[in-house]
Amino acid sequence: MKVSCLKCMNCGKEYKDAPDRYVCDDCGIDGILDVIYDYNSINITKDEISQSKDFSLWRYRKMLPIKDETQIPPLQVGWTPLYKSEKIANETGIKNVYIKDDGRNPTASLKDRASAIGIAKALEAGAKTICAASTGNAASSLAGFAASAGIKTVIFVPKRAPKAKIAQLLIYGAKTVIVDDTYDRAFELSVEITKKFGFYNRNCAYNPFLVEGKKTVAFEIWEQMGFKTPDRVYISIGDGCITSGIYKGFYDLIKLGLSDKMPRIIGVQAAGCNPVEVALKTGKFVAQSGNTIADSIAVGIPRNRLKAMRALKESNGTCISVSDDEIKAAITDLPRSAGVFGEPAGVTAYAGFKKHSNEKNIDINEKVVIIITGNGLKDIESAISVCDIPTPVAPDSKTIENHVKTII
Amino acid sequence: MKVSCLKCMNCGKEYKDAPDRYVCDDCGIDGILDVIYDYNSINITKDEISQSKDFSLWRYRKMLPIKDETQIPPLQVGWTPLYKSEKIANETGIKNVYIKDDGRNPTASLKDRASAIGIAKALEAGAKTICAASTGNAASSLAGFAASAGIKTVIFVPKRAPKAKIAQLLIYGAKTVIVDDTYDRAFELSVEITKKFGFYNRNCAYNPFLVEGKKTVAFEIWEQMGFKTPDRVYISIGDGCITSGIYKGFYDLIKLGLSDKMPRIIGVQAAGCNPVEVALKTGKFVAQSGNTIADSIAVGIPRNRLKAMRALKESNGTCISVSDDEIKAAITDLPRSAGVFGEPAGVTAYAGFKKHSNEKNIDINEKVVIIITGNGLKDIESAISVCDIPTPVAPDSKTIENHVKTII
Repeated sequence: MKVSCLKCMNCGKEYKDAPDRYVCDDCGIDGILDVIYDYNSINITKDEISQSKDFSLWRYRKMLPIKDETQIPPLQVGWTPLYKSEKIANETGIKNVYIKDDGRNPTASLKDRASAIGIAKALEAGAKTICAASTGNAASSLAGFAASAGIKTVIFVPKRAPKAKIAQLLIYGAKTVIVDDTYDRAFELSVEITKKFGFYNRNCAYNPFLVEGKKTVAFEIWEQMGFKTPDRVYISIGDGCITSGIYKGFYDLIKLGLSDKMPRIIGVQAAGCNPVEVALKTGKFVAQSGNTIADSIAVGIPRNRLKAMRALKESNGTCISVSDDEIKAAITDLPRSAGVFGEPAGVTAYAGFKKHSNEKNIDINEKVVIIITGNGLKDIESAISVCDIPTPVAPDSKTIENHVKTII
Repeated sequence: MKVSCLKCMNCGKEYKDAPDRYVCDDCGIDGILDVIYDYNSINITKDEISQSKDFSLWRYRKMLPIKDETQIPPLQVGWTPLYKSEKIANETGIKNVYIKDDGRNPTASLKDRASAIGIAKALEAGAKTICAASTGNAASSLAGFAASAGIKTVIFVPKRAPKAKIAQLLIYGAKTVIVDDTYDRAFELSVEITKKFGFYNRNCAYNPFLVEGKKTVAFEIWEQMGFKTPDRVYISIGDGCITSGIYKGFYDLIKLGLSDKMPRIIGVQAAGCNPVEVALKTGKFVAQSGNTIADSIAVGIPRNRLKAMRALKESNGTCISVSDDEIKAAITDLPRSAGVFGEPAGVTAYAGFKKHSNEKNIDINEKVVIIITGNGLKDIESAISVCDIPTPVAPDSKTIENHVKTII
C-alpha cells in the first residue's frame, strides 16, 4: 500500500486512504488533506523512468495514488514540452531559462493533470457523476476528461468565466451552472450540491488526490532537465493548488532519493487580486474581491492558500505580484521570444520572472523554469485587447506593395 | 543525396533540389513540384524508428528533405495522439475507429508540420523574412514558428479569417496584411509580393517542401497503429495540401519497403464550397465562391487540387461533401464521444465519416482514421453558435438545488 494515509494539514488527524475521502471531518474546508506515502514501498529508479514508452503523466504511475487496477481516462495528458529559450537568455542575461508549455495538454491547460487523476479516482469510487467549481480551466478540463471516459459532469462556473471556457464545457456536454456571483460563491455551492446529490467532487482544494496529478509537472521538469532540479520555478497563483502540486512533486523526488534539492518556488499573483502575497507578507489572510485581466487567478479567497503558503515558505520561495499592464506586456513578449502563446494567467508567471529579472533579483547562473499554465487560445478577447487588428487593405497590387513597404 | 530532384507534376520537367525552388518555370502555379527521393539512399528500419527518443516529427528526419546540418525550429511539433475510440465504435458498429488529434500541435493545427519544414528550409536558404497567404491556420502556424526561430514574417489573410487566428498572428509579432478580399486573391498577392521583395515563400501549394512536412502525419498514424497502415483515412479538403501530404507519406512508406499498402483517402468538403468533389465527379474544375462555417476550407480555387485529386484517385479514394448542419453536429458529437474538440474544418472529416457510416459505406472490419486538423479553441464563435449558453442562476442554495434537479 503506497498511500499510508490521508492527513489533515491543519490538525494532523489521519484518515484511511479512500477515493471519496475529502477534507478533514473536524476542520472542514480549512482541513485539506495531504496524501502521505510510504516511500519505502515505492521502488523506482531514474533508469526505469527514462525507459518508459508512456509519454504522458502516467509514466509516473508508481508515484501516483493509483492502484494497479485503476482505470485511467484515455486522453493523452502531460509530458508537455520544456523549451530552453536562448532568446530570453539573451534578453535577460540569465543563462538558463526554460518555458514549460502546459497549454499543450488535451483541453489546453495544466488542470488536465488534475482531471486525469480526478477521473481515475472517480472510476475507482464507482461514481457516475462528477462535480466541480472552477474559474473556467478546471471545468473545461473536467468536462473533456469526463466525456472521454463516459462519466457525467455538473460544473459550477462564475459569471465572469470567459465565453471560450464556457463554450468548451458545453461542447463536451457538461451540465453547466453559471452562478450569478463570484468563483468563491460558486465553489461553496458546488460543495453543498456535491454532498446533497452524492456526486464525486473534483474540486482541487477539496479532493486531496488532485494535487497529486498536478505534482507530475514537477516530475517532468526534473526529468526533462536530465533528472536535475532547477533553482527556481515561477508559477501564477489562484487557488494555490498548482503551487502545492509543484512543491509536492519535488518533495516526493527528495523523499524517494531521486533528487536532493527543492527549487525556490516563486508564486506570482495579479496586483489586482493578491491575497496570498498579502498573507505571506503580513502573516494575516484577508479575503479580497479584486479583479484582473488574468481571470483564472482572480480568486479572492484562495481555497488552497495554506498548502500554497507552506510550499512557498518551505521552498524558501516567495510571492510577488504584477500589474495588469505587466501581464498584458507578457501576453505578447512571451510568444515573440519563445513561440509560446499563453493565456493571461499563464503568462503572469512570465511577467513575475521579468519583474525579478529587471530587479536583478535572479543570479545569472540560476536555472529558472517558468510554467505557462494555459493556452492563449482560451482567452482570445484578452489577446485581441493587447493587439491592434490591422485595417483591411484594398486587394490591388500597387496598394498592397506600398502597404508592405510601410510595415517591414 | 536523398532528394534526387524536384519534378513538375504537370509537365514532368525536373529541377535541381534547392530550398528556394518553387513551382515549374514553364507551368507556373499549375506546375507544383513533387520532391522526388532516391529511396535506395535512405536506410531506415522500423526498429530504428521505434527506438527514437525524439517524440516529434523530426523522428522521421531521414525521410524528410532536410540535410544533416539543417537547423530546425525549436517548437515541439507532431507526434500528436491517435485515440482508438470505443464509444464511436459502439455508436457506429465500425470496430476500429481512430481519431488523430492534430489540434495538439504548438499553434494548434496540422499546419505546424508544414511550418516546421518551411522554417528549416528558409534557414537553409539563408532567408531573413518568410511570407505566406492563409485562411488563418497556416498563417498563425508560420507566425509562431518564425517567432521561435527569430525570422521575420509577412502574412496575407483574407478579411474572412476568424479573429482568433488573426490575434494569434499579431501575438507572435507577424507583419499582417488583411486583404479586403477572398483567400484566393490573398494567395495571388502573396506570391507577387514574395517575388518582389525577395521573401522566402511558405505557401504550401507553391513551395514543394511543405507537403513533405504534412506527410509526417501519415508516418505517425502508421507507427502509432503498430507499423500498420489503416484501410481508410478521412480528411477535410481546402487547398488540398494535407490530402497530398497524407498520400505522399503512405507512398514513401511503400517505396521504402516499410509498408505494402495505400489506404483509401476520403476527402471531405463543405457542401457550400466543394470544388474538388465537383472536379473529381465531373472531370472538370470550376472555381467557386461559396461559403461554409468551416472557414479553413472555404477555398473556391484549391491551389493544390491537382495533387489532391491525384492522391484521391491513386489511393482508390473519393471526395464527398457534408452540409454545414452536419458540420455543426460534428462540432459537439466528436468531443462528446472522444473528448477531442476540433474546429469546424477539423471536424468536417468526422462529419464525412459519420455520413459514410450512416450510408453503410464502410465495412465494419475496416480500420478507419479520422484526422482532426485544428483545435476547436481556434474558432470559439462557431462553437458558441452551436451551444446554448445557459442563463446565470441566482447564487442561493435552494435555487441552485432546484436548478440542478432540472438538468441532471
